[in-house]
Amino acid sequence: MAILDVAGLRYSYDGIATVLRDVSFSVPAGSIVGLIGPNGSGKSTLIKTVLDLLSLQAGVVTVGGHAHGSPAATAQAAYLASNDYLPQFLTAREYVHTLGRLYGVRVDDDAARDLFSRFSMQGRYDDLIEDYSHGMRKKTQLVSALLLRRPLTIIDETLNGIDLEALHLAEQQLRGLRDEGHAVLLCTHDFSLLERLAERIVFLDLGEIVAEGPTAELVAEHGSLAELVFDRLDSETRAS
Amino acid sequence: MAILDVAGLRYSYDGIATVLRDVSFSVPAGSIVGLIGPNGSGKSTLIKTVLDLLSLQAGVVTVGGHAHGSPAATAQAAYLASNDYLPQFLTAREYVHTLGRLYGVRVDDDAARDLFSRFSMQGRYDDLIEDYSHGMRKKTQLVSALLLRRPLTIIDETLNGIDLEALHLAEQQLRGLRDEGHAVLLCTHDFSLLERLAERIVFLDLGEIVAEGPTAELVAEHGSLAELVFDRLDSETRAS
Amino acid sequence: MAILDVAGLRYSYDGIATVLRDVSFSVPAGSIVGLIGPNGSGKSTLIKTVLDLLSLQAGVVTVGGHAHGSPAATAQAAYLASNDYLPQFLTAREYVHTLGRLYGVRVDDDAARDLFSRFSMQGRYDDLIEDYSHGMRKKTQLVSALLLRRPLTIIDETLNGIDLEALHLAEQQLRGLRDEGHAVLLCTHDFSLLERLAERIVFLDLGEIVAEGPTAELVAEHGSLAELVFDRLDSETRAS
Amino acid sequence: MAILDVAGLRYSYDGIATVLRDVSFSVPAGSIVGLIGPNGSGKSTLIKTVLDLLSLQAGVVTVGGHAHGSPAATAQAAYLASNDYLPQFLTAREYVHTLGRLYGVRVDDDAARDLFSRFSMQGRYDDLIEDYSHGMRKKTQLVSALLLRRPLTIIDETLNGIDLEALHLAEQQLRGLRDEGHAVLLCTHDFSLLERLAERIVFLDLGEIVAEGPTAELVAEHGSLAELVFDRLDSETRAS
Repeated sequence: MAILDVAGLRYSYDGIATVLRDVSFSVPAGSIVGLIGPNGSGKSTLIKTVLDLLSLQAGVVTVGGHAHGSPAATAQAAYLASNDYLPQFLTAREYVHTLGRLYGVRVDDDAARDLFSRFSMQGRYDDLIEDYSHGMRKKTQLVSALLLRRPLTIIDETLNGIDLEALHLAEQQLRGLRDEGHAVLLCTHDFSLLERLAERIVFLDLGEIVAEGPTAELVAEHGSLAELVFDRLDSETRAS
Repeated sequence: MAILDVAGLRYSYDGIATVLRDVSFSVPAGSIVGLIGPNGSGKSTLIKTVLDLLSLQAGVVTVGGHAHGSPAATAQAAYLASNDYLPQFLTAREYVHTLGRLYGVRVDDDAARDLFSRFSMQGRYDDLIEDYSHGMRKKTQLVSALLLRRPLTIIDETLNGIDLEALHLAEQQLRGLRDEGHAVLLCTHDFSLLERLAERIVFLDLGEIVAEGPTAELVAEHGSLAELVFDRLDSETRAS
Repeated sequence: MAILDVAGLRYSYDGIATVLRDVSFSVPAGSIVGLIGPNGSGKSTLIKTVLDLLSLQAGVVTVGGHAHGSPAATAQAAYLASNDYLPQFLTAREYVHTLGRLYGVRVDDDAARDLFSRFSMQGRYDDLIEDYSHGMRKKTQLVSALLLRRPLTIIDETLNGIDLEALHLAEQQLRGLRDEGHAVLLCTHDFSLLERLAERIVFLDLGEIVAEGPTAELVAEHGSLAELVFDRLDSETRAS
Repeated sequence: MAILDVAGLRYSYDGIATVLRDVSFSVPAGSIVGLIGPNGSGKSTLIKTVLDLLSLQAGVVTVGGHAHGSPAATAQAAYLASNDYLPQFLTAREYVHTLGRLYGVRVDDDAARDLFSRFSMQGRYDDLIEDYSHGMRKKTQLVSALLLRRPLTIIDETLNGIDLEALHLAEQQLRGLRDEGHAVLLCTHDFSLLERLAERIVFLDLGEIVAEGPTAELVAEHGSLAELVFDRLDSETRAS
């Protein structure tokens, strides 16, 4: 079963600039799918459409089997931003409970505190986010997604710049989400991370999917994900 | 009529540390009320209670006549944070429309673009917030509150650090909100700003209101708001 | 004796856009002078010239009696930025010692730790600046200036957004610098702060000094610094 | 010839906590060496010692053949921080010229503007850094290192979070530095980046070098750098 299903998605701004043309892919339950996209690929528009921050122009998007735009669909997906976007006037506890209310999920403070400890933030759960360092804010985002355990978790460059041990733990936790049957859409250009974690890759460029398939197959064919991507960026097709 | 009415508010964390003890005040329609509070005054707890980010322990809070915690109450209040807390993966247009949907307000793009121009951000309305400077983010917060025009606008140190011309324009716009019958709760320790804008002052310290009244009267009595506040910070009462 | 003396300063970018025209003022030893300037006033160009980040085109600038551009002049002036510009990979201790070496000043760790405690940052002196909140970074800038005790300290919007108690302490400390005969150039548009701290005001607009004199006299004449400044921003002279 | 030579480096804080014990490695001219280190590895202490931000306790460090602590040694090394640490009150032009003066290098504005364009920042060279987005600040750091072309460039997590095309261009430019005979020390845990760029790896853990050698050999032996590193993090040796 697909947790996220995108079929024939098209999008243009003001009817002029086409940013997505006929994009179709899915993220199965119990899987981690990597999404690679340079500037201008349409990646942001795609994610915003999934999150119902943009309305659907053409195509079909379902989240957890629910139609795009329905409250049921938006309640399925947790989004982690690349930037440490958190309300600084809240404590972590207040933040995750506010999220919990939004998603209709009861947050377990003991589980939260345990994750805080494991991510080297013991004793900081009741501190104001304003007093956190950037690294702690990224880890707080991650912890909140691990607490919410939504059917779909979208991770948008969030793991950039966290420390090595937090990265290692994050990978284990994301595998845990997957093993429980949840789906993860992992947007990053840390290709090693994608090769370690993602079963499948979707490579979007200039509004189209230019490569898609099992990570192992793409690596076998191109040598590495980096070669697949940088060869494309250097290609004549693209320049023209 | 009071837009915000707080009566007998008490709050303690874990039943141990009392952070608010019997706090009562109101913000009338068509007025700007200044809220002054040092660290540990309970100011944050007070604001979070008004915004329904904390539940009510004792006392009565109404917003626009609606009881604390009701959806009607929360829809009355817009909050501007001291930090430039904005979702960086959205454009300003996407951001204000998302807010509009939350508050049930239709956002007029022409009015938004006009405010963007007046705050020296012409042509940036459709750019990603990620690409804004800190000053632009503060001004975008301000513009969003001016577009939403909620009965109650809470401004929490937001005007710190914006440029002089933006500050001047912001003051005019906030007077405009007031003249339309809206209420503004202005939290800052720019005392000159409070003396210019706020008809009344609420000074909270150690969980209690220690001074409250028309700004002009408090200034007449103490010389200036700064003297009122710093004398209190230096006082023996407080140290003991 | 003037610690900072600026006489007939002119500056234009690429010989076309004139940003400073015949600017003259001085900051006497043992005084705090407020500098007010909206966008486009030339305030930044003025400060950069004093700090020898821009070369002198016309006019005379001396710092502590030393000619502009001499190592002796630059060693006289400490600059606090409006933003929390600090090297995040250093601890506060490493940072202030690095500054000390630059300025040829021996930093006393006990005095530093004492100031850290008084600014509510006890026990954080040896932590990485990366792990500080924004407020702590501003306070660390302030502490470093108080440790260096240069003949001239330039404070550029640095006190915006620090908490009320830190602001109160900062004011006392700056008065202490002044009472020891040092000079402070205080750039802010917190007019109450200027009215409390600055003996004299320099108001720069469109590259010229449009008001200059003892703060008390300017306030007596215009009602308040805010009125002086906002009347000018609204004036026809300026618009034409 | 080694541009950076570290031999028998030891360091302890306050004579108690040993953070580096007998660390020896070198970065040859014309090479890119990857440095991997989790929290507590001593990586920061190592870099600060190379940059003469910490004094040498035991061991020998030379940069470009010059002894640690000599002005000649510090003039050899450019450091790019993981955070976007740049003086916000300067324009990029003012910033790179200030750096140029520090390092005794004449900065060519045409070359700078060309790099700005190639990194998608055309027309922004004379704008205040304050008005740059985070991505632009990272790219400005990178451009400044490419302009200075020091014998040794230390890149400390700087490439995290820059966009895919900037990353691709950065890799080409760093190969250019190497091909001119310069040395690059690349600190990151983007293992794919290390596998693409670094000829050799130094893996530091708990103050000691636990793996060192040609990247290809380490990958052949362990499967990937990620496996080498995460196996170590999971190992009993480390936990005990």
